[in-house]
Amino acid sequence: MISRLIEKIVKTNAPVVVGLDPMLSYIPEHIMDKAIEEKGESLEAAAQAIYDYNVGIVDAIYDLIPAVKPQIAMYEQFGIEGLVAYKKTCEYCKEKGLIVIGDAKRGDIGSTSAAYATAHIGKIKVGNTEIPAFDEDMVTVNPYLGTDGIKPFVDVCNSNDRGIFVLVKTSNPSSGEFQDRQIDGKPLYEIVGDKVREWGEASMDGDYSNVGAVVGATYPEQGKILRAIMPKTFILVPGYGAQGGKAADLVDYFNKDGLGAIVNSSRGIICAYKQEKYACYGAEHFGEASRAAVVDMIDDINSVR
Amino acid sequence: MISRLIEKIVKTNAPVVVGLDPMLSYIPEHIMDKAIEEKGESLEAAAQAIYDYNVGIVDAIYDLIPAVKPQIAMYEQFGIEGLVAYKKTCEYCKEKGLIVIGDAKRGDIGSTSAAYATAHIGKIKVGNTEIPAFDEDMVTVNPYLGTDGIKPFVDVCNSNDRGIFVLVKTSNPSSGEFQDRQIDGKPLYEIVGDKVREWGEASMDGDYSNVGAVVGATYPEQGKILRAIMPKTFILVPGYGAQGGKAADLVDYFNKDGLGAIVNSSRGIICAYKQEKYACYGAEHFGEASRAAVVDMIDDINSVR
Repeated sequence: MISRLIEKIVKTNAPVVVGLDPMLSYIPEHIMDKAIEEKGESLEAAAQAIYDYNVGIVDAIYDLIPAVKPQIAMYEQFGIEGLVAYKKTCEYCKEKGLIVIGDAKRGDIGSTSAAYATAHIGKIKVGNTEIPAFDEDMVTVNPYLGTDGIKPFVDVCNSNDRGIFVLVKTSNPSSGEFQDRQIDGKPLYEIVGDKVREWGEASMDGDYSNVGAVVGATYPEQGKILRAIMPKTFILVPGYGAQGGKAADLVDYFNKDGLGAIVNSSRGIICAYKQEKYACYGAEHFGEASRAAVVDMIDDINSVR
Repeated sequence: MISRLIEKIVKTNAPVVVGLDPMLSYIPEHIMDKAIEEKGESLEAAAQAIYDYNVGIVDAIYDLIPAVKPQIAMYEQFGIEGLVAYKKTCEYCKEKGLIVIGDAKRGDIGSTSAAYATAHIGKIKVGNTEIPAFDEDMVTVNPYLGTDGIKPFVDVCNSNDRGIFVLVKTSNPSSGEFQDRQIDGKPLYEIVGDKVREWGEASMDGDYSNVGAVVGATYPEQGKILRAIMPKTFILVPGYGAQGGKAADLVDYFNKDGLGAIVNSSRGIICAYKQEKYACYGAEHFGEASRAAVVDMIDDINSVR
């Protein structure tokens, strides 16, 4: 799977992923009002508004980027209806040729991680029929439970040609609380990084592994160290833009081949129409604002790799 | 919320929770066959079978226990249809007076954790209407991202009278890989335990906090230490029974008040009809087998507290 992602990054010349993380407050009024008019103040209305908003953005940007990263929490908060919108969004993006990275951060003990792997990147057997459930291309995974929480995902990466990104050093302000603590002279994130490299050896696909890592743009020093200890690990980089990460911070996240990292922006793209810089497009043309923001982001990221 | 759980534990005299983690291989043939006959080899059939199986178990045991713990991964693997069965299971259990602990192990950066908290124990606002999504009473949470991944859950515990259990020392074989690593002379699980105590101080409800901890039955030495450093933290204990934990191992998980812990069994109860000990009931009477297993488990756990 990682070779497919790399192929698309090379083709678009854009190591960029757009986070489809729709908060209701991001959605232009005309979309929200129409949904509420049709379905009342309900979860159905919210789900319809989210989906319509996503389609507007995806239609405007799909030719520029290799992948999207829908954050499942933003859909899960609307219950079943929200998850239907999540699934439809994943399907729509795949129809448009985009790789879908489900940002689910799942992880549990072995048999339960196996169920999550099945849910997101595998197929479930009912009788003699194998059926995909959410069917993303790649999914993010939490490492706190250790190898037997990760291995079932790696197995599905191998059997079903999919990929994962394991949380190593997250972008949030308190990520250091546990992740930076020193263990035998190394911070926990390095210990996790060593394991990600090891897990990844079992799922190589060309120059890189299907087992990637999440390393926040907000911690460039740590990013540099992790790039060095995980040379064949693709890094998914959240935290650029709205969270404060800048392109200059990302120099060391890329390998010498100009690959090895894909940078995410969510709010900065999907909510571009609310920024002063792109306000000229107006809420009615939110998709065009997102397109302009994607073009600027690609230029910005490419300036450092 | 924790005071409601304690009240029910005292009333039933059973510090026991039953994990509703239905694998298709657990479901008696007559239920699975009927579902496939009606709905084909489909996710709908699987979801129907899971729900019917759950209802059969819950009907047989609801008066004996305070709570159930459905593992959402086991439903998520059947996609939307599976999650509909999850939601219906939660609703059915609440109608029967049971407290529902959603075993979801969610956790992310601040705004995303807020969405997960809303999804599972809160309400989402659409227009001016507040609507619950999955609406469990309590939910399990992963601490890898630190305080700003946990605080949004604590806020919802306070505003909506709910509870969480934070993973501290998990029951699986490789849990020590990161959780047992020494940091300034203390293992990581103790560092996390210290934080759980601290987070819990912001959400006290009687003698205990709404912020609980997950500590596996399979690590009694660690359980003893964690009980001591988190005296007001309720401990959710997985790993009893099928995973190898024994009642004798749990002596130190309880406080002197006989409270402070609730022990989970999943397979050992819901799949009792497949055990030699309860095989006399037969697959047709799987609920009665589960009831007998619950009675035995309650006696076993009460023998050590």
